[in-house]
Amino acid sequence: MSASTPATDARTRLARAALDAFAVRGFHGTTTRDISTAAGMSPAALYVHHRSKEDLLFELARVGHERVLDLVRASVATSEDPVEQLARLVEDFVRDHAVVHTGARVINYELAALSEEHLAAIRAIRHDIDLVVRGVVDRGVAAGVFTTPDPRMTSLALLSLGIDVGRWFRDEGRWTPDEVAAHYRFLALRMVGAERSRG
Amino acid sequence: MSASTPATDARTRLARAALDAFAVRGFHGTTTRDISTAAGMSPAALYVHHRSKEDLLFELARVGHERVLDLVRASVATSEDPVEQLARLVEDFVRDHAVVHTGARVINYELAALSEEHLAAIRAIRHDIDLVVRGVVDRGVAAGVFTTPDPRMTSLALLSLGIDVGRWFRDEGRWTPDEVAAHYRFLALRMVGAERSRG
Repeated sequence: MSASTPATDARTRLARAALDAFAVRGFHGTTTRDISTAAGMSPAALYVHHRSKEDLLFELARVGHERVLDLVRASVATSEDPVEQLARLVEDFVRDHAVVHTGARVINYELAALSEEHLAAIRAIRHDIDLVVRGVVDRGVAAGVFTTPDPRMTSLALLSLGIDVGRWFRDEGRWTPDEVAAHYRFLALRMVGAERSRG
Repeated sequence: MSASTPATDARTRLARAALDAFAVRGFHGTTTRDISTAAGMSPAALYVHHRSKEDLLFELARVGHERVLDLVRASVATSEDPVEQLARLVEDFVRDHAVVHTGARVINYELAALSEEHLAAIRAIRHDIDLVVRGVVDRGVAAGVFTTPDPRMTSLALLSLGIDVGRWFRDEGRWTPDEVAAHYRFLALRMVGAERSRG
């Protein structure tokens, strides 16, 4: 019942091998040979699917960022209430960064290795993610359920807090992704002053 | 009136060159030749001062982390009041990460490249920094001026928020380090529930 073909399988294997290699040795410390070998392919076979190592990083970053954009849009779509929207958004975003922390690190910390054109494409998706968060915060302020002297910096801080979960989270650590997500949801509502306006 | 000698000058030049190179190409993408050339020295001269590229990264990380530990200890020493202590600590920590963002990125995101022994030494300093933050939060909770269901995760989130400033802050960006520090101070007091207990 799978829609995969030998070509998509090869692409998936290459993407996984590239992600693992970039996570361990960084983009600049990884060769295309490292990636093709880890994917069980010849160096030449890599170029059937990707023009370059940079192209592979871009593919990882594009897919990863589009997935997060879909995720936060879906979180916000679950409710009309900005308080509930922000709570769900932060919970989902943070849980996701804890679960896929290796991938999150690569696509957040290796962006400088992208070409100008590719970086611009990723920045456009990041901007859309920012707009989703800012939209929720702005609607909460307008509705009088959030109070913050700087909605824009607060929105940035909310995303920033979630992104850094990808840096510090460890599978063998003290907390599960759900526990971190629940506490960060609580912190986020405090950051926008939602708690006080209800209390 | 400077206490510098030719040897300390060379060490400083090497450290600066290494930091810049690691920031642009990552630890694994940088060669010792890149570093010595940027420092205006021969590759052999680098080894007079450092056993390896890893040794240079360790030196940068050690000095950087010890500086931050001193910084947060000094922030806390300015007051007896946990609210004021936390406000100063977050303000100083965040301002510092905005100002030295390039260095902060290298020493936070390239740690995996350190040897086990060196990583343990850096982790020990990070643990001391954690303890300073946790101490302030715990004293605030004990004094009834902070309320948080999980002081430990809240402490981690406060540091995490500051560390990620090193990732997103740009000198040419919308806000100055002082503006970010002031808003993050405000957010931090909300995160520990300091505002509500006073309000």
